[in-house]
Amino acid sequence: MTLPSSTGQVLPVALLLAYDGEPFEGWQLQPARPTVQGAVERALRAVHGVTQRVPVVGAGRTDTGVHALGQVASYFPPTRRSESVLLAGLNALLPAAIRVLDVRTMGHRFHACRSAVGKIYRYRIVNRALLLPFERHQAWHVRSPLDLEAIRRAAGMLEGRHDFSTFANAGGQSKSMVRHLQRLAVHVRPGGVIEIEAQGNGFLYRMVRNLTGFLVDVGLHRRNPEETVGLLEARDRSLAGRTAPAAGLCLVRVIYRAGC
Amino acid sequence: MTLPSSTGQVLPVALLLAYDGEPFEGWQLQPARPTVQGAVERALRAVHGVTQRVPVVGAGRTDTGVHALGQVASYFPPTRRSESVLLAGLNALLPAAIRVLDVRTMGHRFHACRSAVGKIYRYRIVNRALLLPFERHQAWHVRSPLDLEAIRRAAGMLEGRHDFSTFANAGGQSKSMVRHLQRLAVHVRPGGVIEIEAQGNGFLYRMVRNLTGFLVDVGLHRRNPEETVGLLEARDRSLAGRTAPAAGLCLVRVIYRAGC
Repeated sequence: MTLPSSTGQVLPVALLLAYDGEPFEGWQLQPARPTVQGAVERALRAVHGVTQRVPVVGAGRTDTGVHALGQVASYFPPTRRSESVLLAGLNALLPAAIRVLDVRTMGHRFHACRSAVGKIYRYRIVNRALLLPFERHQAWHVRSPLDLEAIRRAAGMLEGRHDFSTFANAGGQSKSMVRHLQRLAVHVRPGGVIEIEAQGNGFLYRMVRNLTGFLVDVGLHRRNPEETVGLLEARDRSLAGRTAPAAGLCLVRVIYRAGC
Repeated sequence: MTLPSSTGQVLPVALLLAYDGEPFEGWQLQPARPTVQGAVERALRAVHGVTQRVPVVGAGRTDTGVHALGQVASYFPPTRRSESVLLAGLNALLPAAIRVLDVRTMGHRFHACRSAVGKIYRYRIVNRALLLPFERHQAWHVRSPLDLEAIRRAAGMLEGRHDFSTFANAGGQSKSMVRHLQRLAVHVRPGGVIEIEAQGNGFLYRMVRNLTGFLVDVGLHRRNPEETVGLLEARDRSLAGRTAPAAGLCLVRVIYRAGC
């Protein structure tokens, strides 16, 4: 049961969410548009039996077409419902493109976004002549062979604590442009699939897609990995080149401090 | 080049096709409906630069929502085009839900359907509490645990040469209801995924989905595997129970005699 704490306070509930971003115009609520937050809030109203809005906070505001395997959202339950009733009820009410994987009552300070200390994104590239039908909403199709060694060299220079202005689109809400990119790994999967895994303490607006766009240009020998440090220092978005398409991106995991 | 044979005859061309069946109302051409055959014929008209219909024959007429990884279609080319031009041109013209994996000029007797000597279908079941967003158009979600031993016992009795009337829906065009089901294998994949692989010299209308519906009922202990032989002998569709949903089914491979 979602119980008030001993002080009578309502405790926040965290939802672990997976979704196919293709049918939605991103996470964030927009009037009269299909969004993940909108669908979750509608299901929460129904499962809690209330007519007023039940505002949820997401750990990351994924863009249109971006997927999630481990998005976290939190909200304050307006009525008492057990975790198992919430899990079953939300999955019965939500469209099949969104699944609630877990429900947990958290400590009173928990906030899905502000409590997060890190995130892991995965970007998938299909690097062969043909993109198969089932891959079409889940990958970027790059036909020409990619030089993985060059990509890994550039990726290594992007890791670390930097001002990532060069790789951030306008439209973000961040004051500081400094982020700690703890890992930018390039994995080769069977069948010409390349996955870029980015772990950081936070990401600027479109940062993973801009990093991937640059890395792919490096892999195509349109850019030189040795440019990387200069690009970071320039702090100029116009220099970094293209943004990788949304379909390849997936929010894999949100990291919280133990005990959160 | 697609060349006339020495007798001046135009040789048929075979297309190896993969498609996501979800956005289509099946393989077969229907006026004003999105079908795979319709999309392929439209792309062929464009790539051959003709205005008249270019009729194609598919090896199997997959239903609405049924997928293919290895459908084969054949047609007589109205103009000369090399295999590589056809491959690139068709993939540029077709929607991303349909891909041409290979193009080959065949012997003059080749016919995608009549020359086929066998087919392999795969049916995917997700047997756990939650169906993930990306699985929703590619599997049947069965929540209750399935008894695989019972399923395998029934599947073993279905293998062989039988009159499959009990497992055929009305609407097929077959005269004989006898088919040789060479293999009906049950594979366990990671993460609660069960795949039923059916190989036969041919399949009656909805036969794989009807066999799967019966096998799942056996796995749920709603039916007894020992009923299987009696069901086959009864030749009565009303006895075999439900039809598994289309989304789980995929035409994996069409088998032709060597030299075809």
